[in-house]
Amino acid sequence: MSLIEKLQWRYATKKMDSTKSVPQEKVERILEAVRLSASSSGLQPYELLVITNKDLREKIKAVANNQAQITDGSHLIIFAAWDTYTADRINKVFDTTEEIRNFRSEAGNAYRANLIKNFTARDPEVNFSHAAKQAYIGLGTALIAAAEEEVDATPMEGFNAAELDILLNLKEKGLRSAALLPLGYRKADEDWLLKMPKVRKPKEEFITWFE
Amino acid sequence: MSLIEKLQWRYATKKMDSTKSVPQEKVERILEAVRLSASSSGLQPYELLVITNKDLREKIKAVANNQAQITDGSHLIIFAAWDTYTADRINKVFDTTEEIRNFRSEAGNAYRANLIKNFTARDPEVNFSHAAKQAYIGLGTALIAAAEEEVDATPMEGFNAAELDILLNLKEKGLRSAALLPLGYRKADEDWLLKMPKVRKPKEEFITWFE
Repeated sequence: MSLIEKLQWRYATKKMDSTKSVPQEKVERILEAVRLSASSSGLQPYELLVITNKDLREKIKAVANNQAQITDGSHLIIFAAWDTYTADRINKVFDTTEEIRNFRSEAGNAYRANLIKNFTARDPEVNFSHAAKQAYIGLGTALIAAAEEEVDATPMEGFNAAELDILLNLKEKGLRSAALLPLGYRKADEDWLLKMPKVRKPKEEFITWFE
Repeated sequence: MSLIEKLQWRYATKKMDSTKSVPQEKVERILEAVRLSASSSGLQPYELLVITNKDLREKIKAVANNQAQITDGSHLIIFAAWDTYTADRINKVFDTTEEIRNFRSEAGNAYRANLIKNFTARDPEVNFSHAAKQAYIGLGTALIAAAEEEVDATPMEGFNAAELDILLNLKEKGLRSAALLPLGYRKADEDWLLKMPKVRKPKEEFITWFE
């Protein structure tokens, strides 16, 4: 499948088949794609929690509008973003990068210092929002990676983030939940959305050219 | 190339070859991939501005830290998100979807009403931030789409959004700039980053399993 075909194949699966499980190697490739995706200044300011434990998924479902895909799927990926930027977090990324590349520069030092100065001066809410945007690059990647594996995935924002963060002890990790992504397989005959055409804005409305 | 290989091939190109231009059909496929990407409740709360005009790109570069890829590349995509959610905007999406699918339901009506109630009650800044996150799903898609076309792309947040919005009259369209993405071709012998290994968090740090 080309990328366009993958994007046409995928949809926000409403009914997943609870008897099917996504093979581990497919899940690993989906996670690896997210890990490789881009982020602002390469900070990767988020983590992934992958939940197969059924009891825990039941508890998560209860704070996520009882969306059945959370337990009908076999894996739940939680995108959890940094609650703020700190000098320690930024320094760790830059130190690791310099070590792996065996490369340091005046420009790099200035860039790092500027980033620490600007990011740590901002409101934590602004920083979380910025980190969550980077997680959404990863979310977009995960949707394509799942389609490449012919695995269904349903991106979700409809959950009580405060309650989920408590359930997963995210605060003590300096994280806040940003999005959920159950993985599984569509139960075609019981999914009303599968039968519907995909609706997107016409390109004339979506794109403006300045030539 | 597999998706993993595409993600390994791509990098935030630092030096683009100003003598090369991305063919129109490649740009069209990249834009189409973004158009097909997922968004919260299918609202697609952002638009793309595609700038080939050299004078305009020079002006944009001047409010974007003079990053040379903006003019060395052949196309500049600007991701511009809705400045807020309004009942009109949400209704338009739902009306169009119902018309195309020829499908209306009580559940759909309740979902729409709830969305309008919740989204229009929020601070515009919260709404813009939410819309920008959806744009970042598209940005993640664009990076993969460009790699599939073997086109280089450099995602950028380093620009003066307020000045850029004025330059492009975005306010009167109810939009705010969220991210820039120049497209072009790497000038391999002059790009310091191309020679460096890609650095990502080890998967043990990035992923936590709950089994």
